[in-house]
Amino acid sequence: MPVNLPPLKQDGLLVINGIKLGIANAGIKKENHPDLVLIELAGGTITSAVYTQNAFCAAPVTVAKQHQAQATPRYLLINSGNANAGRGEAGLEASVSCCQAVADLTHVKKNKVLPFSTGVIGQPLPVDKIKQAIPNVVNNLSADNWFAAAHAIMTTDTVAKAVSKQIEIDGVIITVTGMAKGSGMIRPDMATMLAYIATDAAVEQTVLDEILTDAVAQSFNRITVDGDTSTNDSCLLMATGKAPHSLITDFGSNEAQILYQAVAEITQQLAHAIIRDGEGATKFVEITVKQGVDTEECRQVAYTIAHSPLVKTALFASDPNWGRILAAVGRAGIEDFDLSNVTIYLDNVCIVEQGEPAVNYTEEKGQQVMEKDEITITVELGRGKAEDTVWTCDFSYDYVKINAEYRT
Amino acid sequence: MPVNLPPLKQDGLLVINGIKLGIANAGIKKENHPDLVLIELAGGTITSAVYTQNAFCAAPVTVAKQHQAQATPRYLLINSGNANAGRGEAGLEASVSCCQAVADLTHVKKNKVLPFSTGVIGQPLPVDKIKQAIPNVVNNLSADNWFAAAHAIMTTDTVAKAVSKQIEIDGVIITVTGMAKGSGMIRPDMATMLAYIATDAAVEQTVLDEILTDAVAQSFNRITVDGDTSTNDSCLLMATGKAPHSLITDFGSNEAQILYQAVAEITQQLAHAIIRDGEGATKFVEITVKQGVDTEECRQVAYTIAHSPLVKTALFASDPNWGRILAAVGRAGIEDFDLSNVTIYLDNVCIVEQGEPAVNYTEEKGQQVMEKDEITITVELGRGKAEDTVWTCDFSYDYVKINAEYRT
Repeated sequence: MPVNLPPLKQDGLLVINGIKLGIANAGIKKENHPDLVLIELAGGTITSAVYTQNAFCAAPVTVAKQHQAQATPRYLLINSGNANAGRGEAGLEASVSCCQAVADLTHVKKNKVLPFSTGVIGQPLPVDKIKQAIPNVVNNLSADNWFAAAHAIMTTDTVAKAVSKQIEIDGVIITVTGMAKGSGMIRPDMATMLAYIATDAAVEQTVLDEILTDAVAQSFNRITVDGDTSTNDSCLLMATGKAPHSLITDFGSNEAQILYQAVAEITQQLAHAIIRDGEGATKFVEITVKQGVDTEECRQVAYTIAHSPLVKTALFASDPNWGRILAAVGRAGIEDFDLSNVTIYLDNVCIVEQGEPAVNYTEEKGQQVMEKDEITITVELGRGKAEDTVWTCDFSYDYVKINAEYRT
Repeated sequence: MPVNLPPLKQDGLLVINGIKLGIANAGIKKENHPDLVLIELAGGTITSAVYTQNAFCAAPVTVAKQHQAQATPRYLLINSGNANAGRGEAGLEASVSCCQAVADLTHVKKNKVLPFSTGVIGQPLPVDKIKQAIPNVVNNLSADNWFAAAHAIMTTDTVAKAVSKQIEIDGVIITVTGMAKGSGMIRPDMATMLAYIATDAAVEQTVLDEILTDAVAQSFNRITVDGDTSTNDSCLLMATGKAPHSLITDFGSNEAQILYQAVAEITQQLAHAIIRDGEGATKFVEITVKQGVDTEECRQVAYTIAHSPLVKTALFASDPNWGRILAAVGRAGIEDFDLSNVTIYLDNVCIVEQGEPAVNYTEEKGQQVMEKDEITITVELGRGKAEDTVWTCDFSYDYVKINAEYRT
């Protein structure tokens, strides 16, 4: 049961001029379910990408990086149901071979096709099935396929994740549409997080790169279900330049910042949707750490809380167990740290004040907050002016169930 | 159900000349169960200690450190049922007040008494109950109370943990006896790990310090249940000097090394017992990382595997999910790391060879190992000659149950 994440609605999703999507059922998944997506980028589209930092990186990530370094992408080929990870040389050949099949049919060079895979690790990619389905995805390319595509890239997600926004630049309406899949910051089996965001804005490559890097830093890189990171994580931002405004050439300009805000809102909304749909999640939890010396130490404390199995099980149990939170803060590894300056809030209820149980705190007040399904934990370190936020979910029986039973 | 950890036997525990222990039921725990222990150290006994590195450190730890810096300890007062943590100034006063009560009755200065507490965090220490019981623990001081003491310091442990060893130095028989409590590298609620090891060896303070530091590094600091560390962790090593051999003055000497080995075996056995009795544990898992550049990176990889909820749930499910182990290795944060040199074994079954599924590996072979209740995961990094080992347990429904329901 996702936390406050309603089913995706088709009518909220807006087409992007210059982007078409094709969907097919290649039979990769056991269930009879669309599992292949082709995204066509109009000529002149520029693309930025960030990939998993896990050294155990899946074959399609390696190939996508190589292709992107060699040429301007025109097609993205995405399959769900199989991650093509941990297959060595054969995996690389499988990814390249699928790109070649798209290239043959669309008359581009194969390095203009980027491959993406998500699904079970360690199984051979069913290249023949994918090749047989490629004519189908090419034939049904259409600008208004975002809704279907958001469903086709799902693996264990229980809800499809996509969102659109419009902004105005130079009096011109610009559209940004994004979709993502992921239901755990990782399950390496399911090779987690894929995100594709497109806009018709006209923007230079360096600016687009910066927009994506910054937006991801504030969204996909600030969420965690279980601290594991995936072999296949990829996030792409494409700008077709079809909107008739003047080219954005400076990240510091007003125009770039307007576009950045829209992209950042979309990545954050998609990132939150992944947490809301987290494995076994029953709560959506925002953890903000303030008054740090720098954002890094704030993040370090926030992640230590977010990853603590004891805090996560207390959240699941709606137990206002401030000792577990304080103990996580205490072991976060911050140098010269004086816990007697620490103040902690559950929503607006102060539970710890200057390192001790808050004078006015009662278990009843804490309990009231903990019983909600959206909770903010705020920690004030009393050391400086920096702050940072991460988002996570609780740790339930179902997390163990999902991950213990997944392959059996 | 602890993993291969039989009930403690009284007759295996040997007295230490110069050490007496008293036990009482102070009524701190809800259950009618002994919960107060006094350890008396004969004059001339020297004591080494290591304490939690969590900045959120309980009052008794602060007081014990202060007292130890001021005087040579003669008494250790240990209560279970209440951690006296997170109580600020009042907590410190409570600990000092209990020390004073022991001091009054035994005619020593109060800083010769070290306080230790383990149990629920954030509740006021019932000082009056403890003071009332102090005459009882003083009156029943006896050298052969190790068995009863090991039971009295338990909180959620399901099995008492203690062990003795004898060695020979200079033709003299030396005895070492240790006891510990802990059932989770932490549950901040229960404030985890306490260990007391005593010997009649005659040894200089600096040598004893080194013996304890090294022994703890290879035992209590190499185990993890859930990555959380406690507010109250304390480990003490006491040497009474009653055995008639010549004083050990050099850690490098044969005599010191013989004593070190005995202490190290005891701390390792107690540390393993804590994991075997880990919250919800169904498997005892040894993770050895070899061929690293240094032991630090080996330990970093080992802990990343040991803390991965996905690896731990796979262990619980007896699922030979090599992708999860490889993904944990990949995200351990090692610099310039080439995963294609990595080889992984489950016991002696090679599952990953040079970064790819091992050619001769079959799911059946992996399954056979995973179904055992004691499993060794060996990772060869192919980068150097260092190695390190940590011990952990799996992650079961019961872990969530124990930690979600603990306070309710």
